[in-house]
Amino acid sequence: MSPFLQQAKALLAELVALPTVSAEGKALREGAAKVAEILEGLGLSAALHEGYGPPVVYAEGGVGERTLLFYNHYDVQPPDPLDLWETDPFTLVEREGAWYGRGTHDDKGEFLARVVALRLFKEKHGFLPRVKFVVEGEEEVGSPHLEAYVADKKDLLRAEAVVWESGGVDAKGRPYLYAGLKGIVALELRVRTAAFDLHSSYGAVVENPIYRLSKAISSLRDEEGRVLIPGFYDRVRPLTPLELEALSAIPNEAEELKATFGVRDFLGGARDLEFHQRLFAEPCLNVNGFHSGYGGPGTKTVLPAEAMAKLDFRLVPDQDPEEIPGLLRGHLEAQGIHDVEVVVLERGERPARSDLAHPFVRLVKEALEETFGEKAVLYPNMPGSGPMHPFLHHLKAPAVGLGVGYPGNRVHSPNEHLRIRDFERGTLALLRLLERFFGV
Amino acid sequence: MSPFLQQAKALLAELVALPTVSAEGKALREGAAKVAEILEGLGLSAALHEGYGPPVVYAEGGVGERTLLFYNHYDVQPPDPLDLWETDPFTLVEREGAWYGRGTHDDKGEFLARVVALRLFKEKHGFLPRVKFVVEGEEEVGSPHLEAYVADKKDLLRAEAVVWESGGVDAKGRPYLYAGLKGIVALELRVRTAAFDLHSSYGAVVENPIYRLSKAISSLRDEEGRVLIPGFYDRVRPLTPLELEALSAIPNEAEELKATFGVRDFLGGARDLEFHQRLFAEPCLNVNGFHSGYGGPGTKTVLPAEAMAKLDFRLVPDQDPEEIPGLLRGHLEAQGIHDVEVVVLERGERPARSDLAHPFVRLVKEALEETFGEKAVLYPNMPGSGPMHPFLHHLKAPAVGLGVGYPGNRVHSPNEHLRIRDFERGTLALLRLLERFFGV
Repeated sequence: MSPFLQQAKALLAELVALPTVSAEGKALREGAAKVAEILEGLGLSAALHEGYGPPVVYAEGGVGERTLLFYNHYDVQPPDPLDLWETDPFTLVEREGAWYGRGTHDDKGEFLARVVALRLFKEKHGFLPRVKFVVEGEEEVGSPHLEAYVADKKDLLRAEAVVWESGGVDAKGRPYLYAGLKGIVALELRVRTAAFDLHSSYGAVVENPIYRLSKAISSLRDEEGRVLIPGFYDRVRPLTPLELEALSAIPNEAEELKATFGVRDFLGGARDLEFHQRLFAEPCLNVNGFHSGYGGPGTKTVLPAEAMAKLDFRLVPDQDPEEIPGLLRGHLEAQGIHDVEVVVLERGERPARSDLAHPFVRLVKEALEETFGEKAVLYPNMPGSGPMHPFLHHLKAPAVGLGVGYPGNRVHSPNEHLRIRDFERGTLALLRLLERFFGV
Repeated sequence: MSPFLQQAKALLAELVALPTVSAEGKALREGAAKVAEILEGLGLSAALHEGYGPPVVYAEGGVGERTLLFYNHYDVQPPDPLDLWETDPFTLVEREGAWYGRGTHDDKGEFLARVVALRLFKEKHGFLPRVKFVVEGEEEVGSPHLEAYVADKKDLLRAEAVVWESGGVDAKGRPYLYAGLKGIVALELRVRTAAFDLHSSYGAVVENPIYRLSKAISSLRDEEGRVLIPGFYDRVRPLTPLELEALSAIPNEAEELKATFGVRDFLGGARDLEFHQRLFAEPCLNVNGFHSGYGGPGTKTVLPAEAMAKLDFRLVPDQDPEEIPGLLRGHLEAQGIHDVEVVVLERGERPARSDLAHPFVRLVKEALEETFGEKAVLYPNMPGSGPMHPFLHHLKAPAVGLGVGYPGNRVHSPNEHLRIRDFERGTLALLRLLERFFGV
């Protein structure tokens, strides 16, 4: 193993050993301090910014006429279910060419790949280029304070481009980059029809909360998945020819995905470009859970008193997560469903998509292609969500994601790992990007 | 306390001490043996009939030109949740004029009330009248073997009338009797849309099982509770003038019930006779539970792979529980819902209603009125279910329920109890019924 890999492994082991689970508020201050220490070690000036949830690690330094900003996070998902881990989640273990542990990829490994790329740049070119880091501690719980942070610090954070937190190679090993993330808003629907659970013989005269909630949910979309809430699509920005071209150029793996997921057909029978449009560039509604009454074996003749469901809406530019609960309430009222309460669970994240015509997008693509020796896949938008919008909005700069992952990293799951080969190549691509961006 | 109450308490304590929980297959053989011993002690010949689940205790004896058959059960509901019991569920405790413990009312107390009434009859009149007992051990799990038992033993069981297992006084202290029980069939609906749970970002292209199940459930009934499955009401026997008259005569307590249940309005705004018809004499659909995906605090961006719901249909004469699953499947198919599986959980119970014109119905009513000194309320049908149909069908005899309970017995719940005063008066009413039936 090369010295730069050995050093990366040692640092990653230190980061993984800190159980920075934001959902449980654990070890976040220690995580922030360790990240600041690593960035100081690189030659940057680091500071912990307080007042926005767990400390935000900010760092800057280096020389150059332009500035590149890196967004990462030091918090991780809970390790549950613990019994499915083959080794301790908070101890880095090397096995079969990979580093195992919670956060090895998401996002401690990605963060270290940026640090190592900068170190390699410095060794090779004799100076550190002008970079900034924003490393937050609550990405895994929806980054509730990041919008305010970026708004407050926009002058400090000023940069010509943002490198987003993750990326890598696809299932076929092709490198990819992405220029956007969907927005999200998470809601709960609740209905109560009686003061307490009743014997189901009273169902002849007393309303059933499961019926009420089922009626509400089935009114929200059609058979093909199209959302039926009036006004829901009003702010959806039409795709540009460049975005459509990028969507068309994405390798079509719908059939493989169907087999992997055990799915008969995709919603509305979507295939080819329509499939890519839906997955990457259209909003949708999910029901994440529905719970009411008895769920054990056999039967229980109960009439439940209440029911609840959890929803998330995935949004695309220029939909506004703050508008969605009101639209939903209006729709339910118009359907005569007055007894289903809409509770906002998380403030939500705005959708974001960088301008594909921006030179930085092409620059990242070329850096990947020069490193991997093959065509890189450009996703105008990923199907997932993240706090990219405040950077685009306040810094007026594009954000592009590339990284060191692959589809099998088991992000958020037991046995999360990072393949050493992916780390090596992804880091070299980041180095190439630095060289291109800073013109050396 | 009178000697007959002291004796009843001692026997009830012995029965309650046996944790005859049929759902857990516990102590059933001991329960059956104890019941047989008590019936032998009364002077009857008892036998344990095997081959129909837990032993059915059969007993007969006494003299008379006519035979009265008693149906009871020795099994009980599980005691859970245990921590809500103020005293041990399987130890009879006397407190504030009541006997506490699982089964004190349902159905060990009811069974003993019949035994004590017969003992009193024997003491008073010098002989035991001609009676039979069928005491089963799986009433609380839907009496799956009782229909076959009654069919096989119909010659042995022959009787002119059947005294059903339970009854008592209503919330206002008025005695009541009932001549029928609804049928029931319990089903599970299941849908699976993928091989495993996915990240909810895939909800843009992959079907959601909660939507599918919500759509199915909301298609089953209308806003007012009327079942929309074609053919569902076809076999419903129109109410006779006598039945309508009885329904009209039931004291109207809809407003009190609304307040107790915390319900804004009953289904379809039903009141007065319509309310009684719906509750006591119309079939209905219940959803007992719906479970899928995440149900914990906050959010989880998951797309569940499967969803399930539990339903029960309450049936009235002459609906057939065996027909319902087929009707339901046909309805779902006709709605284009091909992916929701219908699984029958329990074979079901047929609805039953004795002919209100039968003299035995009037005889029970008069026995109650003579004992209580006030008008008794006659329910043509109770909203609940039970295995009454095979007795009506195979013995061609009416079955009428009366007993020793009140609405606060906490049947099936923690702190089940039997008020001693109810036991006393109910037993005297049973004695009066015996005297009237056997003409002494």
